[in-house]
Amino acid sequence: MAKQPNPARRSQRSRQAILTAARELVSEVGYAKLTIEAIATRAGVGKQTIYRWWPSKGAVVLDAFLALSESGPDQDMALPDTGDLKADLRVVMRATVAEFADPAFEGPIRALNTEIINDPALAAQYREKLAGPVDEAKKARLRSAQRAGQLPPDADLDLALELLYGPFYQRWLLRSGPLTPQYADALVDAFLKAMRPDIGGSAH
Amino acid sequence: MAKQPNPARRSQRSRQAILTAARELVSEVGYAKLTIEAIATRAGVGKQTIYRWWPSKGAVVLDAFLALSESGPDQDMALPDTGDLKADLRVVMRATVAEFADPAFEGPIRALNTEIINDPALAAQYREKLAGPVDEAKKARLRSAQRAGQLPPDADLDLALELLYGPFYQRWLLRSGPLTPQYADALVDAFLKAMRPDIGGSAH
Repeated sequence: MAKQPNPARRSQRSRQAILTAARELVSEVGYAKLTIEAIATRAGVGKQTIYRWWPSKGAVVLDAFLALSESGPDQDMALPDTGDLKADLRVVMRATVAEFADPAFEGPIRALNTEIINDPALAAQYREKLAGPVDEAKKARLRSAQRAGQLPPDADLDLALELLYGPFYQRWLLRSGPLTPQYADALVDAFLKAMRPDIGGSAH
Repeated sequence: MAKQPNPARRSQRSRQAILTAARELVSEVGYAKLTIEAIATRAGVGKQTIYRWWPSKGAVVLDAFLALSESGPDQDMALPDTGDLKADLRVVMRATVAEFADPAFEGPIRALNTEIINDPALAAQYREKLAGPVDEAKKARLRSAQRAGQLPPDADLDLALELLYGPFYQRWLLRSGPLTPQYADALVDAFLKAMRPDIGGSAH
């Protein structure tokens, strides 16, 4: 009798096949039409194998995205820090805007966002596992700017991230305007102005 | 034989009953579990009556919201204009934030947004019939501020609205922070700073 393959290794292979299938299918058919059955067929496993590891379709899709971000080294999350805050943020926002203008990239993330918007438990997982660490990396760059005297030391960094990314998030989700490099630059410029300390002379 | 009721009036009554049922049910059970059948039952009409007027569940729900905003006079959309831009925007943003912090109010709008995010055709209808006119009313207030010299004459008003509402939209959709009067005020302050003309001295 032939030696059995290592069960842990086989398990790991199945897990990877499921996550890859979920990612491919959510891009191909969209989240609404994605089924656990289709993921199982594409991955070459039984439906029960998927349900043993994940409670829901949303949980599989979230882990499929997490597996993507885990594939690179941790430093991937860090923002560039050349000392020039404006230039660094333009690089980051131009790259972000370009990614979300690409249907192949943004499709699965749109699907995931739809679930997160409607499922507070999935939203909490998403914040803990993905959005939280990414936001920390962004705040690390803003803190560096604070130490360099380029942002006020008492700036609310949660609000700061919302000011920079919120307008873009809305435009992307609602498809309400073009996602261009010029738009990325305009967001960075507006953000830096909004973050300037109030030097008297209110705007009203 | 008794005289038939006026068919146009009966039709109008059915239409109102359907829209009211759709609004009630989307709040009670959420958009995902809402069915045309349940709307028909609640409204006391046949499913075919609904399908005669609307192609989809999303279309009924959108019209249910439109009917709400049509019930008041046009001036309801106008923003306050006391001449004090900061004070007026604080009133508007505090009211907006309070509305979206109320589960009964925000539930149906969250459901509608989910559909809009995933259905470009519904998004176009929503922009044309609801978001567009509302944005025009907001821009009218900003144009008044431009005439009063409180905002730069060349300001991009589409970007301006995104700067003011985008951060709030993101926080609301992702439930990523508290929706408080203080938050509303912080958004207005950041917006007014972002809109100031660039008077030399870049922020980097």
